[in-house]
Amino acid sequence: MRFSVFMPAASSVAAVPAVYFLAGLTCTEETFMIKAGAQRVAAALGLALITPDTSPRQTGIDGATGDWEFGEGAGFYLDARTPQFVDRFRMRSYVADELPTLIGANFNIDPQRCGISGHSMGGHGALTLGLCNSLRFRSISAFAPIVAPASVPWGEKAFSRYLGDDRAVWNAYDATALVAKYQHPSTILIDQGLDDAFLERQLRPELFEAACHQHGQSLQLRRHAGYDHSYWFIQSFIEEHLRHHARILG
Amino acid sequence: MRFSVFMPAASSVAAVPAVYFLAGLTCTEETFMIKAGAQRVAAALGLALITPDTSPRQTGIDGATGDWEFGEGAGFYLDARTPQFVDRFRMRSYVADELPTLIGANFNIDPQRCGISGHSMGGHGALTLGLCNSLRFRSISAFAPIVAPASVPWGEKAFSRYLGDDRAVWNAYDATALVAKYQHPSTILIDQGLDDAFLERQLRPELFEAACHQHGQSLQLRRHAGYDHSYWFIQSFIEEHLRHHARILG
Repeated sequence: MRFSVFMPAASSVAAVPAVYFLAGLTCTEETFMIKAGAQRVAAALGLALITPDTSPRQTGIDGATGDWEFGEGAGFYLDARTPQFVDRFRMRSYVADELPTLIGANFNIDPQRCGISGHSMGGHGALTLGLCNSLRFRSISAFAPIVAPASVPWGEKAFSRYLGDDRAVWNAYDATALVAKYQHPSTILIDQGLDDAFLERQLRPELFEAACHQHGQSLQLRRHAGYDHSYWFIQSFIEEHLRHHARILG
Repeated sequence: MRFSVFMPAASSVAAVPAVYFLAGLTCTEETFMIKAGAQRVAAALGLALITPDTSPRQTGIDGATGDWEFGEGAGFYLDARTPQFVDRFRMRSYVADELPTLIGANFNIDPQRCGISGHSMGGHGALTLGLCNSLRFRSISAFAPIVAPASVPWGEKAFSRYLGDDRAVWNAYDATALVAKYQHPSTILIDQGLDDAFLERQLRPELFEAACHQHGQSLQLRRHAGYDHSYWFIQSFIEEHLRHHARILG
């Protein structure tokens, strides 16, 4: 597995807080680092940035390549259960456990002060991993996240193939379902562009908004006219996200 | 020919100043726009950004592909004279004349307030085109530019194939030679990383520095320990470059 790390100069003096950023469909461990323009702000705030790849690669598994919505480049931050994928597609365990352990052993990062963020499929990852691991990830934010994968085409396609047909299992990876059971002590920040081509069919932030309201999860959901699903959108608001994390992580 | 344009919101009210940014070897019209993180600052300053490709493409010319230092992706911002390249490789005319005319006819940009900048091969382009067209380009800056192409391997290879063997012709495309004849009324800003792997063999800023001193060209050459030739270097200082241009362009 490949990942990118940005370490601020402050890390030469003391252990620094970090934000894990999970990218979306088709992306790699390089995408956010190249396209988001985040390092300037992270350097100023003394924040480390950690960006894993979006799936295992070169798995040789039949059906794991050739479709940008599924398989390699589309791991959906879950631990697969179907026979084909169960051995290799374990992105939940990787991002929530294996990678933080590796990071802790090799970088001057404070494991008590880590947050998680992501975009689109990675926003789904940030919300679900953050809600279920609130000690590991003390702050959460997302850009244009898939908030209810069990109810939208991207998620239905991926979950049926990775997890099988039992929809009860799917709910363990659906932020809108999870927030009934797990609330995060911090306010979750979500930014969503209103010119996002995926908004109504794949993202549906209103479902998560209603569930947060019902179950007492503090949420700041901001809707932005004129912004689409691209990294230009992320560039425009990444500073506010990193400041959100830095404020909570201290 | 392809190019990218960023228009700041201010352009809906009035014609705005613009900076042309010329990319380096292997790059396209997308590279700077994706990797430099410049739009945030350009938006704040009300500056347009214009990034041409680095050469014509799909020319079908024998020898124009397969070498990252020459041909497609490596146009060197000159008008070729050798039989093979004379018809298609005319980047000087394109950037100095054809593109500005096209931009002027289609975007709300003030043609009296344009500057030019670039990186590496594109820094060479910015210096040479800026020096020779001081009314067209009223401000100049460069990151890690090839300041003396007639005297370094990258330039010798490209100039011999594009221009032929007459070294007197080469001097028309060599900033260090040109500054003896053309001085620009503004201060030229150059940033150079001291961990740049190309510094001593290909870039040699001290040659341009000496020529500027000799011929009265105002120059601010800043050397930065710890920075290499990458777009991370550009990201770190692009704000200061855009402010330099905005200050001169008004």
